[in-house]
Amino acid sequence: MIHNFNAGPSILPKEVFEEASRAIVDFNNTGLSILEIGHRTPLFENVLNEAVSLIKDLMQLDSNKEVLFLHGGASTQFFQLPMNFLSKEKKASYLDCGVWGTKAIKEAKNFGLVEVVASSEDKNYTYIPTGFEVPIDSSYFHYTTNNTIEGTQMQWIPETSVPLVADMSSDILSREMDFNRFSFIYAGAQKNIGAAGVNLVVADKEFLKQGNENLPSMMDYRVHVANGSMLNTPPVFAIYVCMLTLRWLKKNGGIKAIEEINSKKAELLYSTLEQIPLFQLPVNKADRSFMNAVFTMENPTLEKEFVALCKKEGMVGVEGHRNVGGFRVSLYNALPLSSVEAITDLINAFANKYAS
Amino acid sequence: MIHNFNAGPSILPKEVFEEASRAIVDFNNTGLSILEIGHRTPLFENVLNEAVSLIKDLMQLDSNKEVLFLHGGASTQFFQLPMNFLSKEKKASYLDCGVWGTKAIKEAKNFGLVEVVASSEDKNYTYIPTGFEVPIDSSYFHYTTNNTIEGTQMQWIPETSVPLVADMSSDILSREMDFNRFSFIYAGAQKNIGAAGVNLVVADKEFLKQGNENLPSMMDYRVHVANGSMLNTPPVFAIYVCMLTLRWLKKNGGIKAIEEINSKKAELLYSTLEQIPLFQLPVNKADRSFMNAVFTMENPTLEKEFVALCKKEGMVGVEGHRNVGGFRVSLYNALPLSSVEAITDLINAFANKYAS
Repeated sequence: MIHNFNAGPSILPKEVFEEASRAIVDFNNTGLSILEIGHRTPLFENVLNEAVSLIKDLMQLDSNKEVLFLHGGASTQFFQLPMNFLSKEKKASYLDCGVWGTKAIKEAKNFGLVEVVASSEDKNYTYIPTGFEVPIDSSYFHYTTNNTIEGTQMQWIPETSVPLVADMSSDILSREMDFNRFSFIYAGAQKNIGAAGVNLVVADKEFLKQGNENLPSMMDYRVHVANGSMLNTPPVFAIYVCMLTLRWLKKNGGIKAIEEINSKKAELLYSTLEQIPLFQLPVNKADRSFMNAVFTMENPTLEKEFVALCKKEGMVGVEGHRNVGGFRVSLYNALPLSSVEAITDLINAFANKYAS
Repeated sequence: MIHNFNAGPSILPKEVFEEASRAIVDFNNTGLSILEIGHRTPLFENVLNEAVSLIKDLMQLDSNKEVLFLHGGASTQFFQLPMNFLSKEKKASYLDCGVWGTKAIKEAKNFGLVEVVASSEDKNYTYIPTGFEVPIDSSYFHYTTNNTIEGTQMQWIPETSVPLVADMSSDILSREMDFNRFSFIYAGAQKNIGAAGVNLVVADKEFLKQGNENLPSMMDYRVHVANGSMLNTPPVFAIYVCMLTLRWLKKNGGIKAIEEINSKKAELLYSTLEQIPLFQLPVNKADRSFMNAVFTMENPTLEKEFVALCKKEGMVGVEGHRNVGGFRVSLYNALPLSSVEAITDLINAFANKYAS
């Protein structure tokens, strides 16, 4: 029995793997592999249309929202977004809450003025700043809803009068949210949406109209809208896996239902860790991520032993990000509660052995 | 029995489909799907390293060549290349031989001066211009080795003193070539390399040094080289399918061996069509593509009948590109000779029926 706590690419539903596996040898009884069908055929157009419809349905999007599946990952959006909306005369505001936000800020500076409205760098990104103000002359305000590496998550949506933009790569579709408050949402697919190699973009039609002119075609969101995510050959299989994963989420009750399970998973793990002095939880309690639980251990010898024990028990991906060390247990939508029960049992047994 | 003549995404070897299908449920006996493994683990690093080694081996690349697998398709390279190598002061020269070259030219104009050294637009792109001269003050000279839509292919490598750049999307790995003469080669994977959603780039180290500064990280080839194609989460599965396809090519004798089969396939199809007045071959004979055979029929009623007959016989993808009409039969590496025999039999039978 394998328990996959990878931070991304990460676990997807078993039935998605099974159906995708079948489609590689015979897609929808066509006798063709999903990898060899033309993208401009009803075979693939139906896949893409269903994926778009499922996103609109699951996120309860208004009719003024466009849904795109684009090549690349969130790192592509780090520069594509400011390329579309910044210039020497246009300013954007960013919240700096970790590695990914910092990268987004770095790329935006290539295209225009960037104001960092607040940062939690002073405490190693272990909390989410509050009380910041977003300048009203910003073209947009950008933040990261969940910080995969640092294990923080923003449990509220900032109030701003400027267009709200969020990188939701690591918690999209995991909890109910008023997605319509955002002018622009992007997310790499390889956590809760599907397979690596594709990007979800949800954008306000009016916001897109404010974009810069004379952009490279592949960089202009409006060109992608006009071409229905088919400006060029799309990442066919990655979009197909997204469609299957979205179908699974819908069948299992959608975001509301998965949020309940996600809460149970996070509460079980955090409450277990809180009771054990052997482990430390560095993140401010109110800002803990329900998707990526980060914890540490003071004793490096025990740390190695814990990692070895996890490996022995078939637990994959519990080591922290190479930048921060410690442990990280990711709790994405497809991770079953039983996997969290398995690791909390192991944590308890480990603690009992070393209780002194 | 299905015969897949799709222009891309297109047929891949059956054993690639079978192994990829297994890897979706259990990759290398890990108990994990290839879709849920971490990209910064030996599991994936081995896949990427093997794909890079196979490219170097199959293309017999010098040690001064870098091999990258990047997000997106050739359309991404249409702007990324000039973004790296053009500016208001730098000029590039382009050969215009069809839809894809025209698109590459359009995107390059956003970044610098573009000189079109020759064009075959005057005869609807049915031939490859000769006798053109490339200005020596060009940052590079760009051409398309095979024109997927128009069915032309350049059977020679232009002599230039400036860095040679080629879009080889639709004929890479199909024929022997001195790939080391090129400073920069790019190709969308979804024809002869593997699955859609990834781009192969082969670039000269010295050429890359001449690139512009202060580029977005995701657009700077040198940043991708420094990160070994892992600046961000790569399209894991698409690269895996490339690796399997390259392994298959190597096992079957490499480019030399596949070129022999490809020649037989093209010769059989073209020689069959040449003998039948019912069909026209619009492309100049010396410039015919060995990958995409384009032909037409004067009688629209018979055209429809021919398409219906192909469909009935399990032949997929024989209709011409939506921009040009007529027929197109793609003959990529993975298409067996038996499929070409099947369609030439059908063409002969059709011709006999309507011979008058």
